[in-house]
Amino acid sequence: MDITPSVALAEIAGRIRRTPVMTSESLNRLTGIDFLFKCEQLQKTGSFKFRGASFAVSQLPDDCPGVATHSSGNHGAALAAAAAARGFSADVVMPENAVASKVEAVRAYGGTVHFCAPNQASREAGLQALIDQGKTAIPPYDHEHIIAGQGTVALEFLAQASDLDDIVAPIGGGGLLSGITLAAARVAPHVRVTGAEPAGADDAARSLADGERVSDHDPQTIADGLRALIGTRNFAVLSAHGIAVITVSEAQIIEAMTLAWRHLKQVIEPSGAVPLAAVLAERERFTGRRVGVVLSGGNLEVGALLRHL
Amino acid sequence: MDITPSVALAEIAGRIRRTPVMTSESLNRLTGIDFLFKCEQLQKTGSFKFRGASFAVSQLPDDCPGVATHSSGNHGAALAAAAAARGFSADVVMPENAVASKVEAVRAYGGTVHFCAPNQASREAGLQALIDQGKTAIPPYDHEHIIAGQGTVALEFLAQASDLDDIVAPIGGGGLLSGITLAAARVAPHVRVTGAEPAGADDAARSLADGERVSDHDPQTIADGLRALIGTRNFAVLSAHGIAVITVSEAQIIEAMTLAWRHLKQVIEPSGAVPLAAVLAERERFTGRRVGVVLSGGNLEVGALLRHL
Repeated sequence: MDITPSVALAEIAGRIRRTPVMTSESLNRLTGIDFLFKCEQLQKTGSFKFRGASFAVSQLPDDCPGVATHSSGNHGAALAAAAAARGFSADVVMPENAVASKVEAVRAYGGTVHFCAPNQASREAGLQALIDQGKTAIPPYDHEHIIAGQGTVALEFLAQASDLDDIVAPIGGGGLLSGITLAAARVAPHVRVTGAEPAGADDAARSLADGERVSDHDPQTIADGLRALIGTRNFAVLSAHGIAVITVSEAQIIEAMTLAWRHLKQVIEPSGAVPLAAVLAERERFTGRRVGVVLSGGNLEVGALLRHL
Repeated sequence: MDITPSVALAEIAGRIRRTPVMTSESLNRLTGIDFLFKCEQLQKTGSFKFRGASFAVSQLPDDCPGVATHSSGNHGAALAAAAAARGFSADVVMPENAVASKVEAVRAYGGTVHFCAPNQASREAGLQALIDQGKTAIPPYDHEHIIAGQGTVALEFLAQASDLDDIVAPIGGGGLLSGITLAAARVAPHVRVTGAEPAGADDAARSLADGERVSDHDPQTIADGLRALIGTRNFAVLSAHGIAVITVSEAQIIEAMTLAWRHLKQVIEPSGAVPLAAVLAERERFTGRRVGVVLSGGNLEVGALLRHL
């Protein structure tokens, strides 16, 4: 790719938040792992998705007639916010079963929501209708600018914690993980990059194990941000770099969320806890190393949870 | 007092965490208030209590035979951690109905827990038995060193955000609020300090309104850290400085927690959300001002909550 994460970072550095890196003595003591956490739940719009969306929108002409996408939530909110910053409209096709707070977030950032049936065909049909109206489609992950933008998280992380041995990040469609892979390969090739995926949505793990992108995919997981099928560009990058993916159970995801909330005091959504779950699931692979974990987002229905108090 | 927060900060600066100050554009936009949040949920042991405990323990002789206290949780954990750092034992009398994760935390930091009936008389009798065994009592709030130690949070906050107009903090026994009052009076007398208290545990508000410390007190609130009766030293400081206290309902506390979790992505315990609730309850008092809010702690049963997902 000519468009590297470094190019993207130079473009968007003034618009995104350089999120902090956190550590926890108590979590390290409890787990025996030397963890560093990159806090993308503190990114604008509450997830790393604002990076890719900001870069992709920055590459559009001033007379863009508005952007459109389909999204289960975080990419939609990020795109709406990035588009609003340039004065563009944003139309977002969302499945009827999207998390209510994510629907509200798209609207809060000025986006227009179009509901569709909760399947890939309906999402694509909804987006096509918007493209037919002249909107510019910005897909959530299978796009060169999006991949480069998401990769900026690794450039920051490596600058903030120069002695990392590992970066572990979640994989849904693969925008984040392929961006990180490209960034690390360029600036820190000794750093091992690993993907983390729910066992109930293990299309990336199967695709990389088989050497061929799978097409059968029936995701069943609480990690709503990781239900997408791995993209073709994303698969190509991860495959070429021999990236391994660790899968985790739903119980392991909840356990990791609990640890992150308890020890870091950070609200992490289920998808964001998957990489921590993966490290704990295969602890021996990470012992004695400085393990960087990307906490990818923090958008979930806290109001519903807190009513249980 | 001769022992000021400045003296305490010079002593403990290397041992406590200088917690960050956070802001949220989306929360400001939603509420119309210009908020800055001092993040004591990120303090060691998960609350501001580690400040006072660290300073009080620093003033003990090397041959101290161990420390003791009664606590519903956060002071106990903080004291256990501060004592362990000096190699002292810590015995903590806790009510049988204390939050389970707070009991675990005292033990995790090396403290010994002694359960008692959930009333003031049993707590004091339990502590007296430990004093009779030769332990040094470090009370949770009605103590000159504790007050000075808690006041260090205001010195940091004022240095990090020099243009604050207000500091709003919760009041239970009053250690935090009286420490902040003394600190602000010395270094930033133009800053208005306000207390925030659950309506179901409004002994401080009544005491300050009456000009006399009340003794009838039957706290009924989800904010377990704010159930204590205001201390005599604490009442004297707050009364002398004419500090106002805003009371809030249980529903307002939950609403403020929800806002903090959603917009700041921070796990705040109910007690820690009370000052945010107070500002929102009396919004007109804070309009057009730079409002500093102390998020006092983040210790609650997240495991139980997350099982609802």
